[in-house]
Amino acid sequence: MVSPLNPILEEALPEKDETAGIEKPLRLLKHVPEDPAALLDLANHSIVSSRQFTSEHVKQLIRLAAKHEAVPQQARRPLVGKILISAFYEPSTRTRLSFESAWHRLGGDIMSITDPATTGIAKGESFSDVGEMLNNYGDLVVLRETNHQAIYRMMEGLRIPIVNAGNGTDEHPTQALADMYAIFKWRLELMDKDIAENKKVRIGIVGLPSTMRTVRSLLYLLALFPQSFKEVVIICNEEEVFSESQKENLEEMGLILRVSNDLKKELPKLDIVYINSIAWIGDDYKEFGQEFALSKSSPLKKGAIIMHPLARGRELSTDLDDTPHNWYFAQARGAVFIRMALLTCLVQHNW
Amino acid sequence: MVSPLNPILEEALPEKDETAGIEKPLRLLKHVPEDPAALLDLANHSIVSSRQFTSEHVKQLIRLAAKHEAVPQQARRPLVGKILISAFYEPSTRTRLSFESAWHRLGGDIMSITDPATTGIAKGESFSDVGEMLNNYGDLVVLRETNHQAIYRMMEGLRIPIVNAGNGTDEHPTQALADMYAIFKWRLELMDKDIAENKKVRIGIVGLPSTMRTVRSLLYLLALFPQSFKEVVIICNEEEVFSESQKENLEEMGLILRVSNDLKKELPKLDIVYINSIAWIGDDYKEFGQEFALSKSSPLKKGAIIMHPLARGRELSTDLDDTPHNWYFAQARGAVFIRMALLTCLVQHNW
Amino acid sequence: MVSPLNPILEEALPEKDETAGIEKPLRLLKHVPEDPAALLDLANHSIVSSRQFTSEHVKQLIRLAAKHEAVPQQARRPLVGKILISAFYEPSTRTRLSFESAWHRLGGDIMSITDPATTGIAKGESFSDVGEMLNNYGDLVVLRETNHQAIYRMMEGLRIPIVNAGNGTDEHPTQALADMYAIFKWRLELMDKDIAENKKVRIGIVGLPSTMRTVRSLLYLLALFPQSFKEVVIICNEEEVFSESQKENLEEMGLILRVSNDLKKELPKLDIVYINSIAWIGDDYKEFGQEFALSKSSPLKKGAIIMHPLARGRELSTDLDDTPHNWYFAQARGAVFIRMALLTCLVQHNW
Repeated sequence: MVSPLNPILEEALPEKDETAGIEKPLRLLKHVPEDPAALLDLANHSIVSSRQFTSEHVKQLIRLAAKHEAVPQQARRPLVGKILISAFYEPSTRTRLSFESAWHRLGGDIMSITDPATTGIAKGESFSDVGEMLNNYGDLVVLRETNHQAIYRMMEGLRIPIVNAGNGTDEHPTQALADMYAIFKWRLELMDKDIAENKKVRIGIVGLPSTMRTVRSLLYLLALFPQSFKEVVIICNEEEVFSESQKENLEEMGLILRVSNDLKKELPKLDIVYINSIAWIGDDYKEFGQEFALSKSSPLKKGAIIMHPLARGRELSTDLDDTPHNWYFAQARGAVFIRMALLTCLVQHNW
Repeated sequence: MVSPLNPILEEALPEKDETAGIEKPLRLLKHVPEDPAALLDLANHSIVSSRQFTSEHVKQLIRLAAKHEAVPQQARRPLVGKILISAFYEPSTRTRLSFESAWHRLGGDIMSITDPATTGIAKGESFSDVGEMLNNYGDLVVLRETNHQAIYRMMEGLRIPIVNAGNGTDEHPTQALADMYAIFKWRLELMDKDIAENKKVRIGIVGLPSTMRTVRSLLYLLALFPQSFKEVVIICNEEEVFSESQKENLEEMGLILRVSNDLKKELPKLDIVYINSIAWIGDDYKEFGQEFALSKSSPLKKGAIIMHPLARGRELSTDLDDTPHNWYFAQARGAVFIRMALLTCLVQHNW
Repeated sequence: MVSPLNPILEEALPEKDETAGIEKPLRLLKHVPEDPAALLDLANHSIVSSRQFTSEHVKQLIRLAAKHEAVPQQARRPLVGKILISAFYEPSTRTRLSFESAWHRLGGDIMSITDPATTGIAKGESFSDVGEMLNNYGDLVVLRETNHQAIYRMMEGLRIPIVNAGNGTDEHPTQALADMYAIFKWRLELMDKDIAENKKVRIGIVGLPSTMRTVRSLLYLLALFPQSFKEVVIICNEEEVFSESQKENLEEMGLILRVSNDLKKELPKLDIVYINSIAWIGDDYKEFGQEFALSKSSPLKKGAIIMHPLARGRELSTDLDDTPHNWYFAQARGAVFIRMALLTCLVQHNW
């Protein structure tokens, strides 16, 4: 090498990924008994809402994700010759790349729609007609769209499965699956029906269930495992915390909900802190204020994990990245594997 | 499932596609004797205009399309390792996805150019230089560009085939092939030289041959089968119906043309109604008025089919979708297969 | 065929590519002895700067490029199942397609980011967080970004290799490798340590080393072969020709540099004329004036070659395209093969 600009240029990349949680999937894989029936249920279905899943669906999808993460060298390419239509009418690099990476790793091909201004929709074409069109071009559609009704309209024309990658302020079910995967990788016993009292955990969610799709979808999945959570504390300082009948539905499923506006006071009691930067309000968004920010100096419980769907803003300090509280990187990493698991189950593929 | 939002979420997708025309391709495949010579003609050629095709080209391409549509499970992947450059300088999701889907189904890889503002063209690079560049990157180019001369300029630099996916108000030859495929799937005998008098059909085209590329390209292909059409009725209320020598050329080829401005009066006599929403006038477009709209209450002939290159506007009511007049969905579905047929013939591939 | 629009439509494409330099790679392949150790050095490294390469790296990469160019039919597909993340935050069709074509020809899959406005970066996400994210989605990143520090920030989060495809006014090392490949294909002996005095060449570079990334990166690579160049003449009429310590570094490596502002006077003595259309000044650019333009009537030395990284503006007349001076098309063609060579060396692949 000749006079390098920067020491970083002379170094090879690290041999081993030391991110927290990297060693966990194999344990999870062994913990959950295989139940193919639950996954076969999903074939040829569209996924719009977390409410479509049973606890067995979630466990088996997570098991399959762990298999993909733990033993990638054994990955076959079951989707060779299958085409994903990746339609992000509301742009999102992170979620789009996560889905596209999952599909590619399964061997499939991809066609992307990333510029809404160039589509027929912009010229007044109906979502139902777009659905009819897409039947001819691909094997599965992933859709993100600000208008939360668009996915239902598109399904009127579709004869291939569609997956909701965020529909306005409504839902984002695959993010919620990724969240559950991260939680269960951390503590396997939270998946179990007969969890011991002293193994139960308290989760705090900084965010607004009424308008945040990630929070809404996550709460439905948490409610499939009510025995594992002592309490779900919603932390915010808004008036309309829940949308109509949302709280009642979750409580009927057995979830114990409490609302607090004091993050600092709650932190020492929380085993899981789920923080989220963005509250959708119509087409616009606003950040939570600094009173809801986390850093190394926050009074975190020993052993607590922090989760965040990313991208982060100032609410999550980078000084936490190198601490054992950082579970958000594991959460992001797992998102590709859970999407691989879901996508293979939804489409007819080459076994 | 737990308290679904919507009944649609519990249902699996339909097992069978019941769209009109879905059962037709196998019949067509058996009707046309194979003639590989006509297809070998096309190897290493660029396709700019419908005028390049003979009736035998059209029949053999349609036969090959029917083979792809009828027996997909037998599809090999002849274009593995081949790269399509999909250059939509004039954006179009529908046509782009149709070409890209065709190429992917043949096993090939794709590079897309969808944002004209980021290309060298926007900075003053010549189309000929772009052509020279693209030789190095791919095996075939698909181009849509508002400037109808651009494809000719690009060909000056190209040593790989290019396919015209719409050049301004000039031509859109692969749309015309898809149209013919839909027509011949409906009535096989329209492909035959020795068609009986009582099998001939009357086609009405709502649109302007002088400025609509789809109409222009379709008319050239219809004129390769003049024996099958009693009459082609152009329905519009513009002054300049034909461009220079267009009508004369078509009549020399044997087509019987008539112009009418009264859709309602013509409808009861038409076997095929071809309707098109958009008239290109320079870079802009205008819609035909409501006097040229079709709905369930229009006086359609019994057994008549409606065709439309889509996307549709208000000129084609959705209340026709579930009637046997709807042949536009079959037309759209077939477009992928006819493009698969054409693309394999144009490039050198792995037999 | 029926009344073609244009004779070009009846002709098949030429059987043989007659572009200058097309027959050269096999000679080069035979000239350079194989040294796998130099290439193994590069595994799991990021490439940010030309300064990272030794002369042996350059020679072996060029040898491998020549192998890809000379014997494409023997190409295996070593990157099947590998994913390239092609991130052009600063848009560039030409460089993007060149990288993507290289990756596809090696069998890999690609995810593109072409619209910076839709990325987390635009919403304030740090480049380091983007790097952390991309680890989960792909196997290698190619980045073009106007901010020359962005690639270093992204590397803080990355555990997969990244390749600099142009970072502001700083560097563009793969363009420089393509330049060297074109030069060495032209005169094999320029790669040799013991070159005869009468084989040495004089190169003129129309451009500004202080602010042009292509020129900066090329000069570092030329300086690895100082024995081959009688002189490097920088031709420009700016004041700040070199950035800090740039000239001193190059001279220490043995390069003989001279500055001139008179292209016409220099031309008759130059064996290689490297011309470049664009000088980056901040985020904007300006063209060199017509005094630095080349055409068929320029006083070029007999046997001299012209190089240009393209796209060209008015500084390089198309009347040179059909002359033996045109080496810029060979330079562009070779760029795909040198990128294939580099990319296979950087990532773990399926031998």
